[in-house]
Amino acid sequence: MAASMPTPVSASAANDHVLPVESHEQLQLSSEDRQRITERTKWVLDSPDPPGFPQEFLGSFRNAVFCRKNKKLSSSQPPLACFASFLPSVFPILNWARDYKVSMFKNDLLSGLTLASLCIPQSIGYAALAQLKPQYGLYTSVVPPLIYSTMGTSRELAIGPVAVVSLLISAMVSKVVNPITDPVSYNKLVFTVTFFTGTFQALFGLFRLGFLVDFLSQAAIVGFMAGAAIVIGLQQLKGLLGISHFTTKTDVISVLISVAKSLHTSWYPQNFILGCSFLIFILITRFIGKRNRKLFWLPAIAPLVSVILSTLIVYLTRADEHGIKIIKHFKGGLNPSSVNEVQFNSPHLREAVKIGLVCAIIALTEAVAVGRSFATIKGYNMDGNKEMIAMGFMNIAGSMSSCYVATGSFSRTAVNFSAGCQTAVSNIVMAITVLISLQLLTGLLYFTPIAILASIILSALPGLINYSEAYHIWKVDKLDFLACAGAFFGVLFASVEIGLMVAVAVSFAKIILNALRPRVEELGRLPGTDIFCEVDQYPVAHAVPGILIIRLNSGLLCFTNANPLRDRILNWVTEENGKEDTKSPISGIILDMSSVTNIDYAGILALEETNKKLLSGGIKLAIASPRWQVIHKLKVAKFVDKVGRDCIFLTVCEAVDSFVGSKFTGPGNC
Amino acid sequence: MAASMPTPVSASAANDHVLPVESHEQLQLSSEDRQRITERTKWVLDSPDPPGFPQEFLGSFRNAVFCRKNKKLSSSQPPLACFASFLPSVFPILNWARDYKVSMFKNDLLSGLTLASLCIPQSIGYAALAQLKPQYGLYTSVVPPLIYSTMGTSRELAIGPVAVVSLLISAMVSKVVNPITDPVSYNKLVFTVTFFTGTFQALFGLFRLGFLVDFLSQAAIVGFMAGAAIVIGLQQLKGLLGISHFTTKTDVISVLISVAKSLHTSWYPQNFILGCSFLIFILITRFIGKRNRKLFWLPAIAPLVSVILSTLIVYLTRADEHGIKIIKHFKGGLNPSSVNEVQFNSPHLREAVKIGLVCAIIALTEAVAVGRSFATIKGYNMDGNKEMIAMGFMNIAGSMSSCYVATGSFSRTAVNFSAGCQTAVSNIVMAITVLISLQLLTGLLYFTPIAILASIILSALPGLINYSEAYHIWKVDKLDFLACAGAFFGVLFASVEIGLMVAVAVSFAKIILNALRPRVEELGRLPGTDIFCEVDQYPVAHAVPGILIIRLNSGLLCFTNANPLRDRILNWVTEENGKEDTKSPISGIILDMSSVTNIDYAGILALEETNKKLLSGGIKLAIASPRWQVIHKLKVAKFVDKVGRDCIFLTVCEAVDSFVGSKFTGPGNC
Repeated sequence: MAASMPTPVSASAANDHVLPVESHEQLQLSSEDRQRITERTKWVLDSPDPPGFPQEFLGSFRNAVFCRKNKKLSSSQPPLACFASFLPSVFPILNWARDYKVSMFKNDLLSGLTLASLCIPQSIGYAALAQLKPQYGLYTSVVPPLIYSTMGTSRELAIGPVAVVSLLISAMVSKVVNPITDPVSYNKLVFTVTFFTGTFQALFGLFRLGFLVDFLSQAAIVGFMAGAAIVIGLQQLKGLLGISHFTTKTDVISVLISVAKSLHTSWYPQNFILGCSFLIFILITRFIGKRNRKLFWLPAIAPLVSVILSTLIVYLTRADEHGIKIIKHFKGGLNPSSVNEVQFNSPHLREAVKIGLVCAIIALTEAVAVGRSFATIKGYNMDGNKEMIAMGFMNIAGSMSSCYVATGSFSRTAVNFSAGCQTAVSNIVMAITVLISLQLLTGLLYFTPIAILASIILSALPGLINYSEAYHIWKVDKLDFLACAGAFFGVLFASVEIGLMVAVAVSFAKIILNALRPRVEELGRLPGTDIFCEVDQYPVAHAVPGILIIRLNSGLLCFTNANPLRDRILNWVTEENGKEDTKSPISGIILDMSSVTNIDYAGILALEETNKKLLSGGIKLAIASPRWQVIHKLKVAKFVDKVGRDCIFLTVCEAVDSFVGSKFTGPGNC
Repeated sequence: MAASMPTPVSASAANDHVLPVESHEQLQLSSEDRQRITERTKWVLDSPDPPGFPQEFLGSFRNAVFCRKNKKLSSSQPPLACFASFLPSVFPILNWARDYKVSMFKNDLLSGLTLASLCIPQSIGYAALAQLKPQYGLYTSVVPPLIYSTMGTSRELAIGPVAVVSLLISAMVSKVVNPITDPVSYNKLVFTVTFFTGTFQALFGLFRLGFLVDFLSQAAIVGFMAGAAIVIGLQQLKGLLGISHFTTKTDVISVLISVAKSLHTSWYPQNFILGCSFLIFILITRFIGKRNRKLFWLPAIAPLVSVILSTLIVYLTRADEHGIKIIKHFKGGLNPSSVNEVQFNSPHLREAVKIGLVCAIIALTEAVAVGRSFATIKGYNMDGNKEMIAMGFMNIAGSMSSCYVATGSFSRTAVNFSAGCQTAVSNIVMAITVLISLQLLTGLLYFTPIAILASIILSALPGLINYSEAYHIWKVDKLDFLACAGAFFGVLFASVEIGLMVAVAVSFAKIILNALRPRVEELGRLPGTDIFCEVDQYPVAHAVPGILIIRLNSGLLCFTNANPLRDRILNWVTEENGKEDTKSPISGIILDMSSVTNIDYAGILALEETNKKLLSGGIKLAIASPRWQVIHKLKVAKFVDKVGRDCIFLTVCEAVDSFVGSKFTGPGNC
């Protein structure tokens, strides 16, 4: 690419009077200069060995996997003291509870109550999305938040069921067991999945495998969340339209066909009217809340108000006898034990483990992203590994007490933050409030219309779709946007798992693509400096006549790009020296290796072949500023001996000085 | 890692008197210096836009895929002249045939005859390996070499059937059609596969998709070839031991079990004795040939001598009646047409395409590797794309004339080279010799013992096993060796395809692994210079007190390593500034981006978070020497505006100067 535009380079070289002077001076390279260059080459060649294979690759993992030494724990301490200092690291509540003040509790009480008023309707709705009975949503808002508040390190994170994980459970578990024909097995499988989700999360935290969460790139999450939001929204059409027979598939096309069929046969417009009116009510309160920050509680309690109002309307008008679908069965009381429902000898164990792994990663991704963004606002650190352990234990405990997978909810965390929560006590307040509601109010929920739950879920979805971030991704990185779009359309038109797989595949393909056909850049001297930069990036830079300075635009010189690099260099030389009007034919090539962090066997072979071919044409090859691994491998592979120790330079500038100062006369001189 | 060894750094800083002087001088950074730095920052920020997504990724492919403009072809030329100048580029023989001299023909005749004497027994053996009748091997040594000699650019490459491709065909095609129960369908499928092999090869050449061949790294090929050699050797046990019932699988365990079973029931030791004696004879001649370069023809004709001698022995002693297995059926004459046997409407079309693709890549890999290494020795250029087109057409023509997949053979090319061949005429001589043998001598091959063919194949195998290269790979790059070992053991214990897949998977996993958890390097100033290098690589370098200079050891700052980098930097700062004995707490961080060739959305987010966190701690973040794509994306993402235009520097040195010269007092100053 650079070779096809030599005009600006030669033009700038001609306009600039600095270069000829410089190169003239360098022709009289003093013996002192020469000694200095040799001295520096020695630095390059006599560097200690870099960390070997186990240190380089496993070391960084070990660093991440095993805890660093805890300085507070020394073996000289008595076991009890040791235990006492160990406890607060597992239960951060022991640290902050001592400093807890009444003024803080005021804030936490207020935010906890606000949270509960939003949490109760959302939990019931998400349980319906997960194809579970409504009480399971409330159960999930009791035990996990209590456990999390003792073990978690985030102060704002609102724990409970969330939309995306509910969709995941519904989509993946219902493929294994049909929730309508066999609800008992379905529940059992859901609890087993919850147990494995918790186990995976705890293991990730204990073994510091948090990097697994990084495998879903930011861009993929944006696309996945948006796709999931649309899929969840479409699922709500069932409740909103009062449809009885609905597809179990989640892709757009199946759902739309199913809806179209139902619209021809039987649906109840009353449900739609009721749902839409309350949806509009909730959206208006949200609009007001956004306009006036002090009224933040208005959108937060709007869902609960909608539930109460609509239940009253249905109860008073007995609208359930005229086609309005209501919840009907609602078992109140404390969380029942579900220890016996977690089954390890079921024929679906394999699926349970698989779904558990997917849920664990998605749930952690959402919670960590939400928690971290609010921790950044408040300026404290969230410990990723402790978070994972806390999430893990809360889900394991949840699976024993009739809860399904809980995690940090984005919409509720935002409400918690706006309500001014100070510590995780707001989660405790919320859990207790939900618990009391479960004891006292469940009888009242008999007449709650399903359409209202649908509208509450629908109202929470826009927060999952982030247009502006998607646009930002498109502007910044087209390939990242491809991962984003892949996840989005995969979720929308295929299934949740396929969407995730597409996103991960595109993300990794991106890394490989970058190593596949990198640009080969031509470097030139920035006027008046010793700095050599790409001539395309810095139009002020001018090439050094007679010397081709080349840099590979890739961090790896490996089998995918080694042969093309060799061919590119050799073609470049042939083209340049083949021109009839060449004033200064190329007599030396400097390979700037500063950006090549690693090289493999194929890369070394290609360098050897390049050197051999160039030498046979009387052209000298120099390697400038090689990195640690690269110079080590070049030494081990005896390439340094072949090219000559005096052809390795610390910087491009020294290589140029050496080339221009010494007239290269033919092969064998190197 | 670097943070855990601050002792040598501070020690060197203390020993060295240069640093304090330098830093003292820099405190009085003149306004001229300041202006110079600002000027250079402008160069960084006002660079033109880099090539966009289509140019960056598709452009490099386009460059590779579409031919560059042929300068000789201008539209003003009459069509006939245009055609006349186009012809030699497709048929290089038209170029070199004009300069062909009688003296060259002498050499080519000799080498062609030597080649034929080696080729005839090898072709028969390889046909047996591919589970085809022996004449097909000879057919394959007639048509493809003739086509190649007109279209190919290599002068030494000996074309014909080779061991590895024969094994591939046998292993993959026999899974679809059983060659023993249904030889007619088997032959048809083999010709169809050959047709697709040729088609793929021609397409690779026409569309310049040669990079697909690069997907098999050198290391993987070494392992694959060694594994294939052992598998081929084991397959020869059938002929060598005279076993009738043999497994169709190729993995070591199946073959050994099959051999063990046969040894219990029925085998004929005479075959083994005969085969081994001639194998020893061939190996001795090779030893002599290696010792005395002038006797290169001795190992070359030894196989043919073995065939003739053993055939005579069997014919004279009628040993075939006493258990010695012989070829028996051998149809002579010209290559019959097989146009009707290439079937596009067969139920196995899909498999044929798949096997064709694998064969195309393996055959090209071998031919290009062999051809290129000899071209390098003789100092001429082999055009990879023309080679692929030539290979493609020779295999398409072959599939029409009863040939199976042909390619460049390593052992025969070496013989051709040693025999002093000058041009591809040696291939023509060989093909004509084989053709004559097919006409005249096939009747004589009736009594040739199969054990001899086995020993001829066995004698060619050691060349495929390259211990020294494997050891070299192990020394240079442990991960490359893993790809090599994966291919080796995959071929050996699973199947040929699995071995290939393992090799490709390991090779690509290597690229991803490199981007996964890169080391974060601390840079320091080399004494008396403006150069900043890694303190671990250059122990003479010393850190600048109060400033942390960091470089990422990866070419990509992407979702896999962005969050860990952020955490690493923030932990580093916390650790350093948390030390009680810190003399100069860190007040600035310089991120040397010189090796980061690309950044993605996650990388930019991580940088933004890092900057926000550091600012809140009163620490300044600077970006030094960003690459073209990186600075462009940082500008588009408005990161440059957030961090401040004066926090972007052309070099690390300027960033240090600016930091040391200006005392940073708090956030907002940047």
